[in-house]
Amino acid sequence: MDKALDIKSYMRDLGSRAKAASRQLARASSEAKSAALEAIASAIEDNEEALRAANALDIEAAKERNLANALGDRLELTPARVASMAEGLRQVAGLADPIGEITDLRYRPTGIQVGRMRVPLGVIGIIYESRPNVTADAAALCLKSGNATILRGGSEAIRSNQAIAQCVRTGLEAAGLPSDAVQVVEPTDRAAVSALIQMDEFVDVIVPRGGKGLIERVTNESRVPVIKHLDGVCHVYVDDDADLEKAVTVSVNAKTQRYGTCNTMETLLVAQTRASEVLPPIAQHLREAGVEMRGCERTQPIFSDAKAATKDDWYEEFLAPVLAIRVVDDYAQAVEHIAKYGSQHTDAIITENFQRARNFLVDVDSSSVMINASTRFADGFEYGLGAEVGISTDKIHARGPVGIEGLTSVKFVVFGDGHIRQ
Amino acid sequence: MDKALDIKSYMRDLGSRAKAASRQLARASSEAKSAALEAIASAIEDNEEALRAANALDIEAAKERNLANALGDRLELTPARVASMAEGLRQVAGLADPIGEITDLRYRPTGIQVGRMRVPLGVIGIIYESRPNVTADAAALCLKSGNATILRGGSEAIRSNQAIAQCVRTGLEAAGLPSDAVQVVEPTDRAAVSALIQMDEFVDVIVPRGGKGLIERVTNESRVPVIKHLDGVCHVYVDDDADLEKAVTVSVNAKTQRYGTCNTMETLLVAQTRASEVLPPIAQHLREAGVEMRGCERTQPIFSDAKAATKDDWYEEFLAPVLAIRVVDDYAQAVEHIAKYGSQHTDAIITENFQRARNFLVDVDSSSVMINASTRFADGFEYGLGAEVGISTDKIHARGPVGIEGLTSVKFVVFGDGHIRQ
Repeated sequence: MDKALDIKSYMRDLGSRAKAASRQLARASSEAKSAALEAIASAIEDNEEALRAANALDIEAAKERNLANALGDRLELTPARVASMAEGLRQVAGLADPIGEITDLRYRPTGIQVGRMRVPLGVIGIIYESRPNVTADAAALCLKSGNATILRGGSEAIRSNQAIAQCVRTGLEAAGLPSDAVQVVEPTDRAAVSALIQMDEFVDVIVPRGGKGLIERVTNESRVPVIKHLDGVCHVYVDDDADLEKAVTVSVNAKTQRYGTCNTMETLLVAQTRASEVLPPIAQHLREAGVEMRGCERTQPIFSDAKAATKDDWYEEFLAPVLAIRVVDDYAQAVEHIAKYGSQHTDAIITENFQRARNFLVDVDSSSVMINASTRFADGFEYGLGAEVGISTDKIHARGPVGIEGLTSVKFVVFGDGHIRQ
Repeated sequence: MDKALDIKSYMRDLGSRAKAASRQLARASSEAKSAALEAIASAIEDNEEALRAANALDIEAAKERNLANALGDRLELTPARVASMAEGLRQVAGLADPIGEITDLRYRPTGIQVGRMRVPLGVIGIIYESRPNVTADAAALCLKSGNATILRGGSEAIRSNQAIAQCVRTGLEAAGLPSDAVQVVEPTDRAAVSALIQMDEFVDVIVPRGGKGLIERVTNESRVPVIKHLDGVCHVYVDDDADLEKAVTVSVNAKTQRYGTCNTMETLLVAQTRASEVLPPIAQHLREAGVEMRGCERTQPIFSDAKAATKDDWYEEFLAPVLAIRVVDDYAQAVEHIAKYGSQHTDAIITENFQRARNFLVDVDSSSVMINASTRFADGFEYGLGAEVGISTDKIHARGPVGIEGLTSVKFVVFGDGHIRQ
């Protein structure tokens, strides 16, 4: 029999079981969902040895295929990481349950009462790359929000993911919830991903987590709506009326607190009236941190160790100790630069000017817009969402850090007493 | 030169001008937007003769192409319809402006203050069939929500739509807003639609309004997210504990108040304990209204003039004086029926039982779920949204009647005082 056909029918079976489980999960009580999360956490702790043994096989296979360097240490499940998976599950268990909340329940002139009720999306497909802890994190967020999940991790982590999935099943069963509520895709073929993103009768939303290549492929081929995160080309703009100390502290933090994250500043914009005052102390800190600076023609005379920035640098998400620096004429040019080269992720202004601070919120069309704060704050935990499945750069449905609420929808509820439309 | 290529570059020009206008519109004050809507209303009233003359040419052309019967009277702009377009614009002008609203602004333990700000989506493409009044209605809702719009109406209404668009431009200019904020696509080729739904760099969301064929084609081909409305196979379930009078009044209203609307009941479900009591008075009213009844094997013995319902009837959106009727064992079978055959649009239960009323809200996964009220209430005006661009049967982004808020997104705003991440 044709292998592609086999995978397709395997995936359709997974999808139909997920859909059935999602109907049970939508009705599950908050207590049952929390109990399941606690039970999964315990199962993970109790099975640490088995998890690490499965993980060791994945690491060995990666070494044989010479993937170990490319994957870095992302694949490894250390005892600390196992503990942190369990801790994450318990944190999600402790969050408020968003499902069933009814808001805006109001009487209408006709006498009916109309409100909105928060409900799960249904079935969520998550496609991710090598970190196996995503298996537990994503399962937890989906479960709390009453959704069934189909998880498709990287082939290099398949044994680790299956071992974690076994703990998830144990916990679900212990709490009396359907074990099909969280399923891990076994075939590591790409055809499995293709089938998953085509099954719009079973899957309500796809969340791809990984490199640009993965996300673009999924977005282009998917028949199911996608909550996606593209680049994070984040800016800090130091305005004419910036406070010097805030400008230096925030810029340095936004670049150096972590290099590989999507909310790290990649381009610094400085109003020309302030460049010669603000740039030297910033450059001093960056130099000490070992950050390579690439400046525009007005930056370079200010400090000699800046390389010349090319036009490509303005578009670049370096994810590395590299910073592009541009001196701009004024506020308007900064906003134009962000609109042209930015990725609508996170941008900040440093200013004491009330009018420009207010304008920046409106003029910059990004998922997070900040005044006098580091771009590194753009994060589900920092925003108080509890946890996140990712940061959406879409405008439709969920935007910015996507927490539990991003995995829900609302429906209208109407209460009457035999009311009819005239 | 290649015609398809011409259309593509025409559409890209339209798209890029819409995108530019959308940035201006996002910053427009509430006063400017309301002034534009008032000016458009006046322009429509002032140009009633020109509108009706353009419309007469469309009607004549439709007659020549023998389309007139198929279109019914939907194409015609009567004086009453012109007046109602102007009235609709003034109503939208009077709605609260959702843009710029900041909610949930809270301090976080780190000292930053995080909130959500309501913002426009950007550029909205609306693809619709023959009713020319949609041109004014859709332009109004998009304008109020700060979005630029590209309108692609049916070819049979092209002259009417262009004449309305001229009034829209007049109004926009009078209020100092960019006239590219609302553009009507001139080429009536299908290639124009294909180009529109592929331009994801210019267009943020597509709203198709029309038949199933149009919506399926747009959904399948679009690279831009689609807010869509598929079928309305709506149910009323008369529960064991229904009040007889409410059961009869609501069922009759849900079927007969209007036949051609998506929130009209298409299938009536009745608990078997109540069938012989509830069905005869309902049938009596339906008979008087001339509604054809198609019943299951348990319905037919109760009244002899019901035809036998086939399995296809349970899936059918009749949009006509036809009703499918099924006697079900109990609540559980009713919920199963709705899950299997329904379209997740609008479903109602008639019951005095508190527990089953509560369960119905959770068990039925539809965009509107009602207790003791007619499905005909599922409507933006009835829900107090002010107006609607359609009723979404999606779960992502907007669900149920889509008003102005459905055409917006939110972004996170973060206020600090030089705060950095530790």
